[in-house]
Amino acid sequence: MKLYDFTMAPNPRRVRIFLAEKGVKIPIEQVDLLAGKSHTAEFLAKNPSGALPVLELDDGTYLAESVAICRYFEETHPEPRLMGIDGMDRALVEMWNRRMELELFLPLARALQNTLPFFKAMMKQFPDYGAAQHEAVNQRMVRLDSELKNREFISGNRFTIADITAQVAVDLRTNLGGMPMPDLPNLRRWHASVSARPSAKA
Amino acid sequence: MKLYDFTMAPNPRRVRIFLAEKGVKIPIEQVDLLAGKSHTAEFLAKNPSGALPVLELDDGTYLAESVAICRYFEETHPEPRLMGIDGMDRALVEMWNRRMELELFLPLARALQNTLPFFKAMMKQFPDYGAAQHEAVNQRMVRLDSELKNREFISGNRFTIADITAQVAVDLRTNLGGMPMPDLPNLRRWHASVSARPSAKA
Repeated sequence: MKLYDFTMAPNPRRVRIFLAEKGVKIPIEQVDLLAGKSHTAEFLAKNPSGALPVLELDDGTYLAESVAICRYFEETHPEPRLMGIDGMDRALVEMWNRRMELELFLPLARALQNTLPFFKAMMKQFPDYGAAQHEAVNQRMVRLDSELKNREFISGNRFTIADITAQVAVDLRTNLGGMPMPDLPNLRRWHASVSARPSAKA
Repeated sequence: MKLYDFTMAPNPRRVRIFLAEKGVKIPIEQVDLLAGKSHTAEFLAKNPSGALPVLELDDGTYLAESVAICRYFEETHPEPRLMGIDGMDRALVEMWNRRMELELFLPLARALQNTLPFFKAMMKQFPDYGAAQHEAVNQRMVRLDSELKNREFISGNRFTIADITAQVAVDLRTNLGGMPMPDLPNLRRWHASVSARPSAKA
């Protein structure tokens, strides 16, 4: 088993944090996205989407998509539960993880890709669209702040994959986007809490 | 239990097809998206994202996000399995469903929202960005055609939620987008097959 990773990319970090929370250690191989190594014929045979992370299983199966890889480890290493503790909770965690992905992580990715000079050589940019996506992210962070007023974590009182998705998005906004954390007290309290977990270094 | 639905919107249709495949019937209430009924204070209390579908449970819980609602019914009505038959298969179905969502359904939604006159009054449009998203969708359909060459359904030889996501996207492209099905034989064979299922009418 081997995880194809690229340390500075956000999606592989979601899986690394998930594995750290589970206490699972597996071999990791770096694939340099910036040098085009995820788009060689050899790598596209592993994942035709040319994206990271990819998990290579011992039977030769390649599993792509960060949440699908997390689900594999939730199945094979159930504890601690990061995707819900029973049927109802699994549905609620799915809802919150999707909200964090569809309303925060993905709009942020589109905002950065369409506005940062860093991405200029990699894709055609639409800066006005990117600016609108930044504004959508800022509004969602304000709403997330109010959602976190009466609970410790995104989906309730347990740390889940939804926290990981939001955490990676917020850190990407700061570190790659160069934008300061907004002055939102509940969001800051939550972010300090997830950042203090050992898994945050993964 | 009640499903808040809007017949012509694509995300509610994903849940309706899923329920039809399971043979589950529940009360349905229409919420007129076009008349702004999903953004009233009353509805935002059910789903602050203002999106459909939403499932209201008997204990007063509101579950939003189409895939989260599907997961709830996969837990409560396991057969037929639409999200995988064992741990490994659940991870693979998750991968394929996410590919269909991230690489087909969502780019198509952004393409239509940013180019169709239909959406002009609802949101600020970025037509050049929308055109680029249309092109991304067209390329992904070509790749999907080759992926379907040696298998009956998106994730293998069983109909799953990944087929539903792709089916709703392809139908939306035709019906709302007004674009003809591309001349791709495997994609057409797959589309004819899923369209012939009774659930396609849901």
